[in-house]
Parts: sequence; C-alpha cells; structure tokens
Amino acid sequence: MEFSSKLLENAVYEMSQLPGIGKRTALRLVLHLLKQPEERTEHLTHALSKLKNEVNFCRSCHNISDTEICEICANPKRDETLVCVVEDIRDVMAIENTSQYNGLYHVLGGKISPMEGVGPQDLNIVSLINKVKEGKVKELIFALSSTMEGDTTNFYIYRQLEGMEVTTSTIARGISVGDELEYADEVTLGRSILNRVPFENSMKAN
Amino acid sequence: MEFSSKLLENAVYEMSQLPGIGKRTALRLVLHLLKQPEERTEHLTHALSKLKNEVNFCRSCHNISDTEICEICANPKRDETLVCVVEDIRDVMAIENTSQYNGLYHVLGGKISPMEGVGPQDLNIVSLINKVKEGKVKELIFALSSTMEGDTTNFYIYRQLEGMEVTTSTIARGISVGDELEYADEVTLGRSILNRVPFENSMKAN
Ligand SMILES: [Zn+2]
Ligand SMILES: [Zn+2]
Repeated sequence: MEFSSKLLENAVYEMSQLPGIGKRTALRLVLHLLKQPEERTEHLTHALSKLKNEVNFCRSCHNISDTEICEICANPKRDETLVCVVEDIRDVMAIENTSQYNGLYHVLGGKISPMEGVGPQDLNIVSLINKVKEGKVKELIFALSSTMEGDTTNFYIYRQLEGMEVTTSTIARGISVGDELEYADEVTLGRSILNRVPFENSMKAN
Repeated sequence: MEFSSKLLENAVYEMSQLPGIGKRTALRLVLHLLKQPEERTEHLTHALSKLKNEVNFCRSCHNISDTEICEICANPKRDETLVCVVEDIRDVMAIENTSQYNGLYHVLGGKISPMEGVGPQDLNIVSLINKVKEGKVKELIFALSSTMEGDTTNFYIYRQLEGMEVTTSTIARGISVGDELEYADEVTLGRSILNRVPFENSMKAN
C-alpha cells in the first residue's frame, strides 16, 4: 500500500496494530475520522489516553473499576462466600447481564496457555488462593470457557486448593463446548450458573 | 451493556462511533490496548491527533499530502494533460498500485448523493472545472464507482464541461457493476484504465 502522506501512513499503521483490523479497514477508519469534525478524533484519543493512564483494577477481584474496591465487591448485598472465577472482565459483564448471580468475582486476566507463553504466574491466581485461605469463601465457581486452556487453568487452581475447605463447581455446560462466554445468550448463561455442577463431576464427564 | 468503570465505558463508546465497529468489537479493542504496554496507546492516539491537526490536502488535486502540492502533481514525468477523476484518496492509492497510469488525479471527496445530503457544492467540482478551463487538460477519465451516485456525479460534471475542449472517458467496466474500485484486483483495474471508453459511449451502453 503506497501512501501519499507519512502522517496518514503512520495513523493507518498504528490503527492496523489493533487485533482484527487489517490495513484496509484501518485506512477506512482513519479516513472516516478525517472527514468528521475535529472533536471526534479528540474525544476518541482523549478517552483512550485517559483510560490507559487512569485505569484501576479492583484490589480484591481485579475487575476494572474507577474506585479502589469495585462496586460489586463493595456491595454488602452480594454474597461474599461465593466467588465466580472468570478469565476476563467481559465475562463479568456477561454474567452480570443475566441478573442471575449474586456472589463476587475473581478476574484471572487470561488462561494458562503454554502456546502463547502465558503461565500461572501471569494470572491473578495467587491472590485467589490467598482469598480462599482467609476462610470467607465457601464456593468457587469456575466459569472459564470450555477450551483446553480453560480446563488446564481450572485444574491448576483446583490442585492449589487441595486441603482447603472450599467447594468447587463449574458452570453447567448449557453453553456449547468451545464457545466464548461473552457470546452466550443471557438465558443460557444465567441457567448455566444456577445449574452449576461440582468440579469433580465435570472432570468425570470428560 | 453494563460497565464497571466510567473510563472504560467512555473509551468503548468513542471507539464504537467508528464505522463498522459495534460495542462488542469496541470493548475487545479497548481491552486489548489496556493489556498492551502504554506506548501502544500513546502511539495510536498521537498518530491520530497529529494526522487530524496537521493533515494537508494537495492544492491542485485534493489528495492527502504532507506538502502543499502532492508528489504526483509535482512530478514532471506525469502527463498533466490527463486527469483521472476519483471519489476518494483510496481510489488514487488503488490506481497508483497498478502502475498503469501516468496522468494526474482529481479527488472529488465523495459522490453526489441526495439521500445522504451530499450535493455538488460539497465536492471538489468547481476546482475541477476551473482546471479544465485553464486549458492544459486534454482528457478527463471518470473513475467513480459504477453506482447510481457515481453515474449521477459523472453526468453532473459532464454537463458542466459543455462547450469546453476536453475529451471525457470512463474506465472500462472490467470491474463488475456495483463493486468498489479499491477492492478490484490490480490487473483488472490497470486494464480498465488502459481500455477506457469515451464517456458518451458508456452512456449509450446504459
Ligand atoms: Zn472487585
Ligand atoms: Zn496533487
């Protein structure tokens, strides 16, 4: 792709570094911004910079939050004996959307994936184990996606919990195997939380 | 979509204002940036702001250019008697890519589209007519996409040229009707420029 302007080329290059955005799409987006009033670009760049510079993760559950402790963790009406372990904040949003769950969350920040160089030390696992050690948590619900990496991560955490007094469960597999949580419809996802099964059972099923 | 952070919500909102980027895609892109080193966001926002603030359009052909007159217009080896009329700078890039064309361009900046509220006065048509009036241009090649708006625009310009000594042609329709220029393969697009037909003929064909 030959550019008539270095400024344009550079903007398209940076835009095309985003996942799923090829050079042509990047060019289309950048030219769109050029046609819009200046405020459009300003608002976009300002919002992205502000988020990146000021973003805060809940000290307890690692969800994105504008406060030190997120609204969910700080809510006294939520059941703090129940912790749902998810990969990503998008999964928190998806489960919250179902209005079927009243416990807390723990955002791992990814899945163990040797292929992508993600090990247990790269995820928020130590803080999860420490949370369980404190003794308040009665049940951990594993809600990772049902992929090999998800299963590996579940199992790694499960073994770390050995000897601790905590029940483990996984969300019911109403969601088809291999599907991402965030794309599941609300009814299915809500039901799969209500019908969660003990983690040991889910292993037998495999 | 319920957000746990206003900063996040705002960034996703601004990102989702881009064409073809829904809320979910916007969230994915924003969370990707959050996971990347800070420089990634800085480089992106800086490149977009710099382009928007410093962008310059060639005084002659309206192509994006870092100089007052673009490299194509300033190149003495290009044939200034030949002007290819295009909708968008993406079309300039697509035609340049074919290496089949040695004339100049004129970027209209859109097509006449009453449905979208785009009239002749919103496009770079006056400067095109003035360019022809100066007398150097021997041939105008219409290379707008073969849609109703493209045809309307061609015809509008064609009528403005009445009485002037200039040949008009349209690129050969090797490109399937309704297709966007920028998605045509290089060989087809290059050939359709070489085999351009007089504009009058293209009207008869319709
Ligand atoms: Zn929290
Ligand atoms: Zn120019």
